[in-house]
Amino acid sequence: MTPQRPTSRAPTNNQETKREPGRSESAGLAPLRLRLDLRYDGGAFHGWATQPGLLTVQQSVEEALWRALSLPAPPALTVAGRTDAGVHARGQVAHVDVSAECWAAAAVSARRRLARLLPASVLVTAIGPAPAGFDARFSALWRRYSYRVCDEPALADPLRRHDTLWYFRTLDLDRMNEAATTCLGEHDFAAFCRGRPGATTIRELLRLDWSRVEPGVSVATVVADAFCHNMVRALTGALLSVGDGTRPPDWPSVVLAARQRDPAVRVAPAHALCLEEVGYPEPGEMAARAIATRRTRTAAG
Amino acid sequence: MTPQRPTSRAPTNNQETKREPGRSESAGLAPLRLRLDLRYDGGAFHGWATQPGLLTVQQSVEEALWRALSLPAPPALTVAGRTDAGVHARGQVAHVDVSAECWAAAAVSARRRLARLLPASVLVTAIGPAPAGFDARFSALWRRYSYRVCDEPALADPLRRHDTLWYFRTLDLDRMNEAATTCLGEHDFAAFCRGRPGATTIRELLRLDWSRVEPGVSVATVVADAFCHNMVRALTGALLSVGDGTRPPDWPSVVLAARQRDPAVRVAPAHALCLEEVGYPEPGEMAARAIATRRTRTAAG
Repeated sequence: MTPQRPTSRAPTNNQETKREPGRSESAGLAPLRLRLDLRYDGGAFHGWATQPGLLTVQQSVEEALWRALSLPAPPALTVAGRTDAGVHARGQVAHVDVSAECWAAAAVSARRRLARLLPASVLVTAIGPAPAGFDARFSALWRRYSYRVCDEPALADPLRRHDTLWYFRTLDLDRMNEAATTCLGEHDFAAFCRGRPGATTIRELLRLDWSRVEPGVSVATVVADAFCHNMVRALTGALLSVGDGTRPPDWPSVVLAARQRDPAVRVAPAHALCLEEVGYPEPGEMAARAIATRRTRTAAG
Repeated sequence: MTPQRPTSRAPTNNQETKREPGRSESAGLAPLRLRLDLRYDGGAFHGWATQPGLLTVQQSVEEALWRALSLPAPPALTVAGRTDAGVHARGQVAHVDVSAECWAAAAVSARRRLARLLPASVLVTAIGPAPAGFDARFSALWRRYSYRVCDEPALADPLRRHDTLWYFRTLDLDRMNEAATTCLGEHDFAAFCRGRPGATTIRELLRLDWSRVEPGVSVATVVADAFCHNMVRALTGALLSVGDGTRPPDWPSVVLAARQRDPAVRVAPAHALCLEEVGYPEPGEMAARAIATRRTRTAAG
């Protein structure tokens, strides 16, 4: 099910490798892995991943954890989906390693303290000890995103303009779903990705379909084992071109088959994209899944 | 059905009386009344009504109309619901009188031009000639508002924080609906209003109930012939105190019966309130309704 990927796709978590020395927060103490569930308004941040001088979700949450759990230093979060600038999340998952002693002292009030320390644009909805072997990134089986579009000017809602694309050409959802079906399965999605040199772009697209959720508003549901950079937004952009009649329904599959980035595919704007859910195996399967993911991602190296 | 109101409640539209001379845009030309349907994010404005030095919806739309319809001066809008600062609208209705010549020249592109001239926080979803006798304020039969509350911290959505009250005490909707029922009908709502000296506070509350619209989120639907200042938010505040167990279900009716502003009633925050719809009679009944409304509002003077 999971394709082989070359070594050059970072075998370990990027965030961890960027840490300066001495940020390990559990030296000499019993380590404990915590799972965090997060929701955030991506419009308030320059994406998930820490960047010098920019406000990011990762940095905000790490600093809040540092204070809320009285850790010796800001901890290093590992995340399931490294959302780009402007992309939202209702079901982001991260893990962090702390000392069992720190957690024991802070557990009862942790979520309440985090709520006070974080801006209203980011919420830790749950925090607690993770199942054995859990890795927010490598244990994940799939990620589910949504993309929200309004195609009817009279029904556009200014209150939802922060998470909805206003695309005022009537969309034919049947055409879009016909086109979407041709992209399902395991493929090299290079045509729909902003590539990183040497990184694999093979992914398994498990679900891609559109439905009208209210008058004038349609939502795409997109599920894959993992996504390359820009993949959901490029697929969405291609399907919008099919939906408005600019391109035929077989166009996305033709683009896909070419296996190289096609400038005719417009990357849909970030603000209508939301990470809704990350799927994990049963608690007893976490370590096995993480090992399998790491192995397939390094086997071809 | 409509109660008697003293003369001191402004018998004519406030906005019109505040205009400086010379802002009539149809002098000497055939007048035409246009109906506008509007949606806006109230968080971006200091309420509907024009205030010197502050950004308001009314001023923004009047200036956009001036330019979009090439009027000789900014026109004067009359609105169905004068929303307070922070209150949103998905179904606001206004009217404006222009010359038939101006409209004939601008009709085809009016909505598109308005969309370009207005910020994304306000949308004119429809504009066109109104039925004979139409008055956005006085022809209205009822106004419907919604009030959106999340009472479950783990289900709070940062993306909806701009139009949802986070009220993290579990709400008993049955208790709230029991209490709401006791407020229905025609009453003097002075207890739930920020009074204006001499202005009547008699209103007919046609509907007030709560329902769960998604996990953790409840919405109140509030309909009345018209509302006094702060009335929906004060009623909502009282019902929240019932819903969280602070007050018994008969408390709102006890407060109501006292017929004077009760400081124990907390006015719920503005940002979760939205004007959803304004009801009008059949097209042939517009003038009769406007005359009847004006008569009942001045009869007791």
